[in-house]
Amino acid sequence: MNSDEFLIDYYDTIQDRRVVSNVAPGYLRKLLPPGPPHEGEKWEDIQKDIESKIMPGLTHWQSPNFMAFFPASATYPSMLGELYSAAFTAPAFNWLCSPAVTELETTVLDWMARLMNLPACFLSDGEGGGVIQGSASEAIVTVMVAARERYLDMACEGRQGEEREMKKADVRGRMVALGSEQSHSSTAKAAIIAGVRYMSIPCRMDDDLALTGAGLQKVLDECKQQGLIPFYLTTTLGTTATCATDRFEEIKEVAKDWPDMWIHVDAAYAGGALVCEEYQHLTEHLEAFDSFDMNMHKWLLTNFDASCLYIKRRRNLTDALSITPSYLRNDFSDSGLVTDYRDWQIPLGRRFRSLKIWFVLRTYGVEGLKAHIRNHICLGERFHSWVLGRQDLFRVVNPPAFALTVLTVVPRAGGKMEVDAGGASRPGVSDGLAKDGVPKTEDQGLVAANRITKEVYELINSRGEIFLTSGVVNSVYTIRIVSANPKADEQHLRKAFDILVATAEEVLDRLGEGGRTLTNDVGGH
Amino acid sequence: MNSDEFLIDYYDTIQDRRVVSNVAPGYLRKLLPPGPPHEGEKWEDIQKDIESKIMPGLTHWQSPNFMAFFPASATYPSMLGELYSAAFTAPAFNWLCSPAVTELETTVLDWMARLMNLPACFLSDGEGGGVIQGSASEAIVTVMVAARERYLDMACEGRQGEEREMKKADVRGRMVALGSEQSHSSTAKAAIIAGVRYMSIPCRMDDDLALTGAGLQKVLDECKQQGLIPFYLTTTLGTTATCATDRFEEIKEVAKDWPDMWIHVDAAYAGGALVCEEYQHLTEHLEAFDSFDMNMHKWLLTNFDASCLYIKRRRNLTDALSITPSYLRNDFSDSGLVTDYRDWQIPLGRRFRSLKIWFVLRTYGVEGLKAHIRNHICLGERFHSWVLGRQDLFRVVNPPAFALTVLTVVPRAGGKMEVDAGGASRPGVSDGLAKDGVPKTEDQGLVAANRITKEVYELINSRGEIFLTSGVVNSVYTIRIVSANPKADEQHLRKAFDILVATAEEVLDRLGEGGRTLTNDVGGH
Repeated sequence: MNSDEFLIDYYDTIQDRRVVSNVAPGYLRKLLPPGPPHEGEKWEDIQKDIESKIMPGLTHWQSPNFMAFFPASATYPSMLGELYSAAFTAPAFNWLCSPAVTELETTVLDWMARLMNLPACFLSDGEGGGVIQGSASEAIVTVMVAARERYLDMACEGRQGEEREMKKADVRGRMVALGSEQSHSSTAKAAIIAGVRYMSIPCRMDDDLALTGAGLQKVLDECKQQGLIPFYLTTTLGTTATCATDRFEEIKEVAKDWPDMWIHVDAAYAGGALVCEEYQHLTEHLEAFDSFDMNMHKWLLTNFDASCLYIKRRRNLTDALSITPSYLRNDFSDSGLVTDYRDWQIPLGRRFRSLKIWFVLRTYGVEGLKAHIRNHICLGERFHSWVLGRQDLFRVVNPPAFALTVLTVVPRAGGKMEVDAGGASRPGVSDGLAKDGVPKTEDQGLVAANRITKEVYELINSRGEIFLTSGVVNSVYTIRIVSANPKADEQHLRKAFDILVATAEEVLDRLGEGGRTLTNDVGGH
Repeated sequence: MNSDEFLIDYYDTIQDRRVVSNVAPGYLRKLLPPGPPHEGEKWEDIQKDIESKIMPGLTHWQSPNFMAFFPASATYPSMLGELYSAAFTAPAFNWLCSPAVTELETTVLDWMARLMNLPACFLSDGEGGGVIQGSASEAIVTVMVAARERYLDMACEGRQGEEREMKKADVRGRMVALGSEQSHSSTAKAAIIAGVRYMSIPCRMDDDLALTGAGLQKVLDECKQQGLIPFYLTTTLGTTATCATDRFEEIKEVAKDWPDMWIHVDAAYAGGALVCEEYQHLTEHLEAFDSFDMNMHKWLLTNFDASCLYIKRRRNLTDALSITPSYLRNDFSDSGLVTDYRDWQIPLGRRFRSLKIWFVLRTYGVEGLKAHIRNHICLGERFHSWVLGRQDLFRVVNPPAFALTVLTVVPRAGGKMEVDAGGASRPGVSDGLAKDGVPKTEDQGLVAANRITKEVYELINSRGEIFLTSGVVNSVYTIRIVSANPKADEQHLRKAFDILVATAEEVLDRLGEGGRTLTNDVGGH
């Protein structure tokens, strides 16, 4: 069997494999020799080991039974893009290294910007433009460094040499990057990398966990009082925990008093939906912000990695990240005639990732992409309504949002279970995914609900028929279900719902019979 | 023609294509429609555009006529690795996301460490280990941030809250990252990203442009005098400009007095040669250093990207880059039983890059890799000797080193042409590649030689039969020739040499006839 056939067969039968791997840590080392062979081996022998040694350790993100995290879909045209990129290998750090790598990237990113109805300021024919990054997290580091340097350049204007260095150190020590409690943890990590402080802004259940203008204003005032400099903010279109969308219009209004604060829009997953007209009102206020990022590799059928980062003023990136001294710059490159993308990113080299975006856009066409998104939105809403129909078992935490449903299991004994709306979530960073057991709370009803929900979640994943993710939302332990897999249809979602119902009933029944929890039966994840 | 056939044909005939693209900036936009199609297109139609629209804009790094920069080779087994990685797409940020992704990476990086004779401290069974990064530049940012945080943690021990923040700001403002003048510019860029100062250490022609213990000592003393804190140093095994190797033993001795300074070994290209016993003495002192990086995607037959970064104490990385609060850590993950590579890198998600390394190691075997390296070393030495045989035309700047030859063209009129050995190179950053015309110098003989060498270089590249890179080495404009392409044999190197000779004679002849330079005839690169 050649590799094409192998992979087609893999995709054709993927739903029959256990979706989440259940190997024990260290499984692979035992299966492999202590080193590479002395003499080369035949491909046939190597390929056999993919099935026997690698497959057992794969969690199958392309399976229609995968409903965890956010999707990371691959399709045949995107795989071909990756294959051609590998064949044309060039660490294309500047235009001449392979002009097509740069020019196709600029073109397809403009295509995508228009398709998503992004404001014109993000297109390459003005002062802005797009660049492919490896991930939304890498994009955040990149723009945060640009934001830091833009602020420092301004704050230290006119100073030279050691005086400038000392001033920079003083200012940098007071600079703080902001994100909402619901923004992804990559903003907190980026702040570590950039060497600045991080502060998170509380979000309330009453606001559907969106960052509001008032919430932002409060933290900005606190910063001012403490002598801190909020120079950067991540806002989110589709948060990890509940797919909430921040209140962009309110944020824009508040930000008018903070013109030096860089505002980034993280639309990593939900940004894919912007290809549909019915979501394009969400881009209405984005011209007020500095950067925007959406991952083709989540919802838009392109294998990881293909994160589309847009910048309003590309000079902000190149001023920060170019190591070409200013006296060597020339009108030629500043005009945008030639783009050296190495100055738009952290690493030097880059792959030909625009090929896969080009192949996907052409293979599916605009209508194909819209149909793909709408199909999952529709399935997601159906799932949401099924869950709402079983209020005896479940409570839904979020409104229908980008195909994601977030729920908790309701204890039977009538135990109190209320969502703590007062912003009492854990301090520090969060990516909205549960990491470590049940959140601490004083509320005994909530404690019970959290424990049951966690038990249902762990039991489902341990059985491996479907794969879900849990989350913690303002002290509430939740189960997240999201499907945006090209192979998933209503029967897969129905199966997932049936498993949820059956497992919840099983756990509640067992608790009713004497309260023995199942946690010890379940392999910890 | 299917894609496999297309790519095999591309590789079979690649030597007949013009190696460096000569499209004009903006060529591609004119060939493409203003947006993606409404309805999807057939693959056959898309594939046709690869030949007609993409190929003209490619610089063919896989061509045996490519002798520029450093090689970036791709091979069929590595392409298959990339294809399977795309098919198995998972943004495998933690172990459970797809255990095989993590475990194969740990295994093949241990294989490579042993193959290169790295000290045992870099293996995963102790406190160290390897991780695949996208590029040597990304690796440097990663370790520099880890080094910065390690130093700051130590300097701010015992302080909490605002007091700690203020102390950090003060210390950070005096922290300086070091690299030699010959180290790649990515260290200077990493210092920008990490928000620290950068200082470069002069290298002398008399030392073959290696960083010496004395050179390092001098700069460390200066730092101390100025109240600066040198917390990080990049040393290089095979510099970009001349493939020089720093004096590791001397550096180790000097560093004994600076135990808190992180020392990184950048062996991006030349590290590949360490698979051969005759180069393994170069690893003798590396146990004294903190990290080491080698790119499989340069010399070792693996398509970009596959940079192998090794760390002596993996805790240094995870302490800096994990956003999991320390009270959530557990023995399980600290024991190394489960590795979450997201904490070893800047981005969150990661591809299944170990597959391609595994496929390459197995397909070629240890002996195949050695034969590949030795073949190019041998060809490079032959080329070096041909150049030495034409002292009427050329002067060789470097000793034979890792298949790279660096030369200048000798002016005929007996013009003075001496290398400025006194460290008078340009201040600031350099990656050893010429960016912008002829270096400034007072020496009129050198001015003439630089101008002629540049003219020969530009004429060769404009004709597109072979593709070379120029460099500036201590004010001397040079031409670099390096071939490590799997398809290159003696005839390709001989052709390159003949072109060099013919072009040098052509330029010198024309200058002899009245001194008219050719620069205006040549398209600027």
